[in-house]
Amino acid sequence: MTEAEFIAALRRMPLHPGARGLIDDSAVLTAAPLVVTTDTLVEGVHFLPHDPPADVAWKLVATNLSDLAAKGALVEGVLLNYPLGDAAWDRAFLAGLDAVLTRFQARLIGGDTVTMRGPRTLTLTAFGRDAAAPSRDGAKAGDGLWVTGTIGDAGLGLAIAMKGDGPTALRDAYRRPVPRLAEGRALGPVVHAMMDVSDGLLIDAMRMAGASGLAVAINLDSVPLSAEARSHGGEDRAARLAAATAGDDYELLFALPPDTPPPVAATQVGQFGPGEGLRLFDAGGPVPLPARLGFEHAPSR
Amino acid sequence: MTEAEFIAALRRMPLHPGARGLIDDSAVLTAAPLVVTTDTLVEGVHFLPHDPPADVAWKLVATNLSDLAAKGALVEGVLLNYPLGDAAWDRAFLAGLDAVLTRFQARLIGGDTVTMRGPRTLTLTAFGRDAAAPSRDGAKAGDGLWVTGTIGDAGLGLAIAMKGDGPTALRDAYRRPVPRLAEGRALGPVVHAMMDVSDGLLIDAMRMAGASGLAVAINLDSVPLSAEARSHGGEDRAARLAAATAGDDYELLFALPPDTPPPVAATQVGQFGPGEGLRLFDAGGPVPLPARLGFEHAPSR
Repeated sequence: MTEAEFIAALRRMPLHPGARGLIDDSAVLTAAPLVVTTDTLVEGVHFLPHDPPADVAWKLVATNLSDLAAKGALVEGVLLNYPLGDAAWDRAFLAGLDAVLTRFQARLIGGDTVTMRGPRTLTLTAFGRDAAAPSRDGAKAGDGLWVTGTIGDAGLGLAIAMKGDGPTALRDAYRRPVPRLAEGRALGPVVHAMMDVSDGLLIDAMRMAGASGLAVAINLDSVPLSAEARSHGGEDRAARLAAATAGDDYELLFALPPDTPPPVAATQVGQFGPGEGLRLFDAGGPVPLPARLGFEHAPSR
Repeated sequence: MTEAEFIAALRRMPLHPGARGLIDDSAVLTAAPLVVTTDTLVEGVHFLPHDPPADVAWKLVATNLSDLAAKGALVEGVLLNYPLGDAAWDRAFLAGLDAVLTRFQARLIGGDTVTMRGPRTLTLTAFGRDAAAPSRDGAKAGDGLWVTGTIGDAGLGLAIAMKGDGPTALRDAYRRPVPRLAEGRALGPVVHAMMDVSDGLLIDAMRMAGASGLAVAINLDSVPLSAEARSHGGEDRAARLAAATAGDDYELLFALPPDTPPPVAATQVGQFGPGEGLRLFDAGGPVPLPARLGFEHAPSR
């Protein structure tokens, strides 16, 4: 598609009033304060070359809205930086974009289109308002470490998406994560610290503990696995370690005072204490840390 | 560089207070209203593979700040989406980033790093405050079309950067554009419409006229050329057409009522009138429109 055709299609989506109809190079946002977050997805790194373009659009928006959920924010809108490609891919992406924006009531604020060769690189920037905005560095010794939903489905789903067969519920957990916006709204005012699980439960928990100047102990047995994950991937120590290091869960991970019940469905998986670092255990006793705690960016050149 | 090393280097740059020390996935902005703009630069499209990394950092920031200048905004800060590459390139980029942020008093708000193969794709999102925020659709029939600075230097500079020899002043106009922030502040409250010249004087003027529902006539003889450009590229009709269609100027283009003197150094190059489309003329009479009015994005796949 040409840039003009692509922008004309964007104009038919839910537009933020500050977008000025996408005729300008800039948008104007009047809500304050705003929470802002940005994520880039790279073909071959964050999504598979044969993933359906509509799912790529979904994931691009959902992963950013997940960061807003972790701040307890309402969705204000998004900016899109898009590489124009072949028309069929662009059209399918636009259909998915329309669907995910509509589903999560996210309005388009603006963006930029470019032409490029090589792996598609897509950036979305999301804005939220009315956020309690807990940081990841506020956990206190004695706080419980909790997580919403289940962990590890997307990791199993990635393998399914690569091989082409397996439960679609798991594959969809990888391709179409659902940001925990309502849960984030309820949790925002009561948590000491919150973030979303994007790189893996263990690495993200260690990051929260590190930012808070604390140690964290996680009971592997309590890591919540879905019925599909138990049935497809098992539930022994190895399966639980795989789930806790796979990433792409987009559940909310939070520190809650010991006397506070969580206002949403959630599972306590560990506890913060004085010191530093991550300690793992299960019913069998201490569990050695795996070499890889989650997804970390390393130079690829 | 690893992501951790890169982020550690970013932490030593001017940070926005809302960046929370870059420990979180989100930032919090309290100023309102905010002008927001975003641009993506692609290696081989918007910069040359052998352009110095520090110059790429400069251009990435400067092109976005130019959009803020066109809104008459003060710079609030920037988000960076960066592809980690080889350590030498990353380090040189960081040095350039520090220089351009410091030069224009732009503070880092946050961002994202990814690993990728293929052409480097960099995105910056810039925020401005206290903006008069003129749009591009407010020109009135009878308004003059004005431009700051000189036009065409960057186009000649691109050719020089590709060939490796020629006046460095022109090459630097391509590699290190200077956003017209002070001029934008002065112009914001008095113009009817304003935008920056990024894709070419002719195409950008036609876009302003089109958005405003007007025709625009441009006198090629009045297109301001620098002394270096006259000496290097000539000043005949062909040279002026090349300058007016080259793009990457990052000067401010604005519509000013006929009885209003511009508050900054600027040149009137045309006039808006009823109707539609772009008309060119010079001392020799009407000038046929060139086939290519400027830089337009087209699909490359």
